[in-house]
Amino acid sequence: MQTQTSTVGTTVVADETSRLISSDMVVGTSVYNLQGEHLGSIYSIMVDKISGQVAYAVMSFGGFLGIGESYHPLPWRMLQYDVCRNGYVVDIDRRRLEGAPSYNPGSIPNWSDSAYGHRVDTYYGVPPYGF
Amino acid sequence: MQTQTSTVGTTVVADETSRLISSDMVVGTSVYNLQGEHLGSIYSIMVDKISGQVAYAVMSFGGFLGIGESYHPLPWRMLQYDVCRNGYVVDIDRRRLEGAPSYNPGSIPNWSDSAYGHRVDTYYGVPPYGF
Repeated sequence: MQTQTSTVGTTVVADETSRLISSDMVVGTSVYNLQGEHLGSIYSIMVDKISGQVAYAVMSFGGFLGIGESYHPLPWRMLQYDVCRNGYVVDIDRRRLEGAPSYNPGSIPNWSDSAYGHRVDTYYGVPPYGF
Repeated sequence: MQTQTSTVGTTVVADETSRLISSDMVVGTSVYNLQGEHLGSIYSIMVDKISGQVAYAVMSFGGFLGIGESYHPLPWRMLQYDVCRNGYVVDIDRRRLEGAPSYNPGSIPNWSDSAYGHRVDTYYGVPPYGF
């Protein structure tokens, strides 16, 4: 698994010449875990209006044609782009994902309250996003 | 005009509690200049795959229903969000915009070549985006 992680890292670094991607290309991109399981796809990205930093990627998970779908915000820094898979890779197994903060299309969280983002960061054990 | 600029800045800072915005809310947002003229709207944002930093906002300009429309990449740091106008404000007059790097829907530039972004940065006199 360690080898796989570093392969992902190397791939990203090798892709220096095409570092920029349009937001509409990010949305819809597949997300895999280190075991190569398809976890979901990027539904939207949450951007800091002031700094322009992408803070979270919201991944859609499960469901079919939008029914039964749930949205899992992932701290952006957890995602690594893998050019070979043409998708993002995160070090999260399915079980951890299932217990993670998530919401349904009808119950969008209050992103204005930074406590929500902090809850996500804490769950995944990453430093709190800097507000 | 100076007062107006600082008003925009103040408004942004006051909006600390809702700093995060979904990419699909950024897209379609109006862009104004300091004179309050409507310049266009955000068509897409260009994100650095590795750092997650938004480097450019691509503004659509002119045209009708996509016909005759042109796309103007603007360095992200030039945009300030104005909660009162519910849009972004940039310090660019129409004439400067008309001479700026732009492209048509049929001739998307090669974003993989960092020279394109540098051309945009140079035109607007902002420090080159850090590759």
